[in-house]
Amino acid sequence: MAEIKKPVAKKAAAPKLADPIAATIDPASQEMIARAQKMGIDTVFDRAVQMKPCNIGIQGICCKNCAMGPCRLPLPKGGIEGEDTRKGLCGATANTIAARNFIRMIAGGASAHSDHGRCVAEVFMSAARKETEAYKIKDTNKLLQIAPWLEVATTVEEDGEVKDRDIDEIALEVAEKALNEWGKYEGELLFAKRAPAPLYEKWKKNGVIPRNIDREIVEIMHRTHMGVDQDYKNLMKQGTRAAIADGWGGSMLATDLQDVLFGTPYPLQSEANLGVMKEDHVNIVVHGHEPVLSEMIVAVSQKPEIIEYAKSKGAKGIQLSGICCTANEILQRHGIPSATTFLSQELAIITGACDAMVVDIQCIMQNLANVAKCFHTKLITTHPIAKMEQDNVIHIEFDEHYALEDAEKIVKMGIDNFANRGSEVMIPRHKCTQVAGFGVESIQYHLGGTFRGNYYTLNDNIINGRIRGIAGVVGCNNARNRHNEAHIEVVKELIKNDVIVLTTGCNGIACAMEGLLTPEAAAVHCGPGLAEVCEVVGIPPVLHLGSCVDNSRILLAATEVVKAGGLGKDICDLPAAGSAPEWMSEKAISIGHYFVASGMYTVFGVTLPTSGAPVFHNYISDELEKIYGGKWDIEPDPIKHAQMMIAHIDKKRKELGIDKARERVLMDMADRQALEA
Amino acid sequence: MAEIKKPVAKKAAAPKLADPIAATIDPASQEMIARAQKMGIDTVFDRAVQMKPCNIGIQGICCKNCAMGPCRLPLPKGGIEGEDTRKGLCGATANTIAARNFIRMIAGGASAHSDHGRCVAEVFMSAARKETEAYKIKDTNKLLQIAPWLEVATTVEEDGEVKDRDIDEIALEVAEKALNEWGKYEGELLFAKRAPAPLYEKWKKNGVIPRNIDREIVEIMHRTHMGVDQDYKNLMKQGTRAAIADGWGGSMLATDLQDVLFGTPYPLQSEANLGVMKEDHVNIVVHGHEPVLSEMIVAVSQKPEIIEYAKSKGAKGIQLSGICCTANEILQRHGIPSATTFLSQELAIITGACDAMVVDIQCIMQNLANVAKCFHTKLITTHPIAKMEQDNVIHIEFDEHYALEDAEKIVKMGIDNFANRGSEVMIPRHKCTQVAGFGVESIQYHLGGTFRGNYYTLNDNIINGRIRGIAGVVGCNNARNRHNEAHIEVVKELIKNDVIVLTTGCNGIACAMEGLLTPEAAAVHCGPGLAEVCEVVGIPPVLHLGSCVDNSRILLAATEVVKAGGLGKDICDLPAAGSAPEWMSEKAISIGHYFVASGMYTVFGVTLPTSGAPVFHNYISDELEKIYGGKWDIEPDPIKHAQMMIAHIDKKRKELGIDKARERVLMDMADRQALEA
Repeated sequence: MAEIKKPVAKKAAAPKLADPIAATIDPASQEMIARAQKMGIDTVFDRAVQMKPCNIGIQGICCKNCAMGPCRLPLPKGGIEGEDTRKGLCGATANTIAARNFIRMIAGGASAHSDHGRCVAEVFMSAARKETEAYKIKDTNKLLQIAPWLEVATTVEEDGEVKDRDIDEIALEVAEKALNEWGKYEGELLFAKRAPAPLYEKWKKNGVIPRNIDREIVEIMHRTHMGVDQDYKNLMKQGTRAAIADGWGGSMLATDLQDVLFGTPYPLQSEANLGVMKEDHVNIVVHGHEPVLSEMIVAVSQKPEIIEYAKSKGAKGIQLSGICCTANEILQRHGIPSATTFLSQELAIITGACDAMVVDIQCIMQNLANVAKCFHTKLITTHPIAKMEQDNVIHIEFDEHYALEDAEKIVKMGIDNFANRGSEVMIPRHKCTQVAGFGVESIQYHLGGTFRGNYYTLNDNIINGRIRGIAGVVGCNNARNRHNEAHIEVVKELIKNDVIVLTTGCNGIACAMEGLLTPEAAAVHCGPGLAEVCEVVGIPPVLHLGSCVDNSRILLAATEVVKAGGLGKDICDLPAAGSAPEWMSEKAISIGHYFVASGMYTVFGVTLPTSGAPVFHNYISDELEKIYGGKWDIEPDPIKHAQMMIAHIDKKRKELGIDKARERVLMDMADRQALEA
Repeated sequence: MAEIKKPVAKKAAAPKLADPIAATIDPASQEMIARAQKMGIDTVFDRAVQMKPCNIGIQGICCKNCAMGPCRLPLPKGGIEGEDTRKGLCGATANTIAARNFIRMIAGGASAHSDHGRCVAEVFMSAARKETEAYKIKDTNKLLQIAPWLEVATTVEEDGEVKDRDIDEIALEVAEKALNEWGKYEGELLFAKRAPAPLYEKWKKNGVIPRNIDREIVEIMHRTHMGVDQDYKNLMKQGTRAAIADGWGGSMLATDLQDVLFGTPYPLQSEANLGVMKEDHVNIVVHGHEPVLSEMIVAVSQKPEIIEYAKSKGAKGIQLSGICCTANEILQRHGIPSATTFLSQELAIITGACDAMVVDIQCIMQNLANVAKCFHTKLITTHPIAKMEQDNVIHIEFDEHYALEDAEKIVKMGIDNFANRGSEVMIPRHKCTQVAGFGVESIQYHLGGTFRGNYYTLNDNIINGRIRGIAGVVGCNNARNRHNEAHIEVVKELIKNDVIVLTTGCNGIACAMEGLLTPEAAAVHCGPGLAEVCEVVGIPPVLHLGSCVDNSRILLAATEVVKAGGLGKDICDLPAAGSAPEWMSEKAISIGHYFVASGMYTVFGVTLPTSGAPVFHNYISDELEKIYGGKWDIEPDPIKHAQMMIAHIDKKRKELGIDKARERVLMDMADRQALEA
């Protein structure tokens, strides 16, 4: 019998956002919400006030996996004394139901990331086969770097001599091996071996190394079917396997292959917030997650003849900007500015200056179509798997074999629409400078040693205490939270306490909108240690690593820190923590869980769908920590949230024996060897 | 803008089963429910009275796919006049939400069937590689029959001569090709070509030929993720593709490979209902869906030394019986009797005579563990993906490489437990004779022509009107319906009207418990035409084709009927209909949808999670019919339900010009050619 205990006190934060305008901390968004209200246009900020979430569903104890239900278990008000006898019609307990729901969320999230990765791999295959003019192998260094992990040789022996292998040949084999990762019927996920050896061994021992990517997602769906797996520990085991298949599989392949195709990002300067849109320019906003099409839109919108075309229609040029992770993808590789985050996506249209909004996949609100109807905006869906019901939506299906043609058609549609604007343009003035485009490689360069890129200097600064620890702060917005508030407060509290922040996704955009992605932010917001490091190196205290799939960069950065030595032997030994202060999507649960399974203490804001099943909640926090070293936690209050992360970082510093402040010493080889021992 | 109309009137049948004992029509079950109540043991019949389903969830309009919700749309009480403005926080409409939920159910069901198929394929590979003593290629005819569909050659050319290829070689290549169907990254599902050519062409034209099995399930999870596909038609397109990957993929592979490994079923006699258990025997009840382990349990329990062992423990022998589809699998190949259906599974333990219940996967109630606690019953889980939380459950993990050893361990555990029975044994006396084990091949034989097995005689009898049409009646029980009532009433109404019934799953068991699976039932229950055919041929009016995955046999039987000629050119032309009167599981939705996508008019009982989204409901009924010729319908009342099927059959007879009764004439070749033209 599993131990029964009172449910954790931290449960769903009751929605208390009665005023839609006050439901964001961003002044640009406030202006646009006010405008929408004036115009009688309904946005998510209004709907969040009007509709409450289901109180049982939000706590994880509604089961609709068969048609005898939906079974809604009673809430454990005031906790459960004695045996927990709540059950669904089949006898499913609160633990079974919450675990099923939880891992189906992992399945949803992992499928999104891995499908994204597969789409990139297919385009990569087209490029490797030279079937397309638009896509080429751009970053051969990155290709050579990932090839061995996919068991693709980069050299050949000819006449007893080792020679470099033909790049085209390598690309083709990388494409094949990569595509096979989704469905091969034997073997195991190849990238699992990129994790620190002790972590890989933990996974092996616990039977959670993925066999391939798709199978683990499918097996979640099977196990959570009525009458299959009814042991929350066993259910979570499969959840773990699928989450690893996401973080170290689908997402990592997406990031790597995108870098090879479009270039590995390096730091560059740009801007963020709705103020990046320009009244006298054609404004094209790209929104979604895949860079495959948006890369082409960037290319097309920079063509002189296209700019001329825009001018011929009365515009001064073309202003491209982005929302969600499509924004992050073209920001980190081309410096295209970020218009806004997930929750405020409708507001880009409310400006009246959005001539075309081009969407691909994920996190696109169906209400965009209703808002677009009130303006001249062309709303264009482009992906075969993501259409919209409303009849004002234009579908231009993107085909990688005609990529530039498709992109040109879309951009021209935006340009042609410039003349159709009403007089009602109102672009908020607010925008901030941002420096983005960081990654495993650039951290190596910026925080690395003198002679070659490495992580020793970063480690040294953690060991000497100037940097207290590392936080990965990521994720969405959630209409049940004040827009961007938790993002900003969590990050500010962390950097104030000398914790360097790696960010991705909408957290990255929120930080950019607040000006935290500038080197200058260090002096204003950081504790003295982190401020000093940022000033010396010339980096922001918050390093933007890209999109949701680029959370795989955080995994690899953490692995590099482990390898550099002096901070333990595994990711779970590091003074590091993860956070998603305003999570909303199933992808966030998958990401959270691969963080946890990789050894990271991970705190979510808003709520977790586990509060109705306290034993299960305890399992994914305290019990999983005993297995993988990482654990789940939940805290809606942003300051407490950050403090919990800092407490964990301090605990790890103590375990590493670096809790006392140490003066920085110039490390020689002997010192390093001592650290590595 | 999609057309808005009043929601269909047929919605969720309000649960009105206030008395648990009256909630079944089966006298054996009634006795056991009464006993359980006396003993203070809670069964699903009690829980169904205590807990109501969520009224919004049951209508398909609760969305919990992101953490801004769950968003519960208002019910369209009295229909929707004008525009349907209901939406979730993101703007998702009732159509989007219902379609997402519906295809996630397909994903759940398809994953269950296809994982089952994959497990069989893996055991098949072990057998082909001769890694196991327990499993062999048993039915080489079936192997040779399916090999070409998997593009495996059965002959070789040697020295200009065509020779039979080595069976072991064929088996190995079939195993490889089969396993590749789950994850290959190019090509399309090979078995799709087994469908009638016009159907295959319809699928091709509509872009719903599966690429592989897993990918289609994963893509459902992605498309239904927050902010991806928001067009119910496009969502259903993917649902269709995944459902085809189930029926013509995972399920069909499961059936075929099982037949090759364990033998293609041929008609045999057995019994059904709890009365098959014997007080003086060791009673071992197998329950679940996969035959891989239960085949070994059958083999072990028939070994003389094991029977001796049972006798040494005071029993007169070993009585094996089954529940759900594991029952159907060992019934159709070995004549092992069926204990009971899904809903009454707990009652097998209430007899006090169940020495061991051995469960594998799917439809296993977690409450079995609580019931087993009240008796001496050993409840044994055997599958790595299906464990139970409760600590009285014993897990003996089955490994195909030690299959007989594992099975022996389990059977011996049951035998050893015989002595632990209390004095409380009470086995109901009710049982019925059944004839089961029909299939595509045996229908060919029984209803075939004089010289060789074929479907001409069946077609002739349909054309001349003795048989009015064919119904596939399948599926689960549902605690929201009176147990077995709809199953029996639908089937009786159909055969009374000369419609021959093909059954699988729990419908098959329910019919067996009612005595409908006997040739003698024809005279009692059938209309004169069907009665005559049954009497002449010596078959029951209800032909039991096996388990849930064996619904693929119905698809292939329908294809054979099309091929035999005279009844149109495609499955949708046949005077045939499908039904699941008491469905409960996601598998049923997947099955229902591959029936619909294969051209079958398909009626479900109980409820459908679409009534909250009338436009979507209309799409999957009337609109899909225009595309695939099949459509969804819903009718909880069993007589109306059967009459709707008969009306459809009559409509098809009229379209074929066979609505007027015709005298049977001896067909010569010219007649046949005329029919086929």
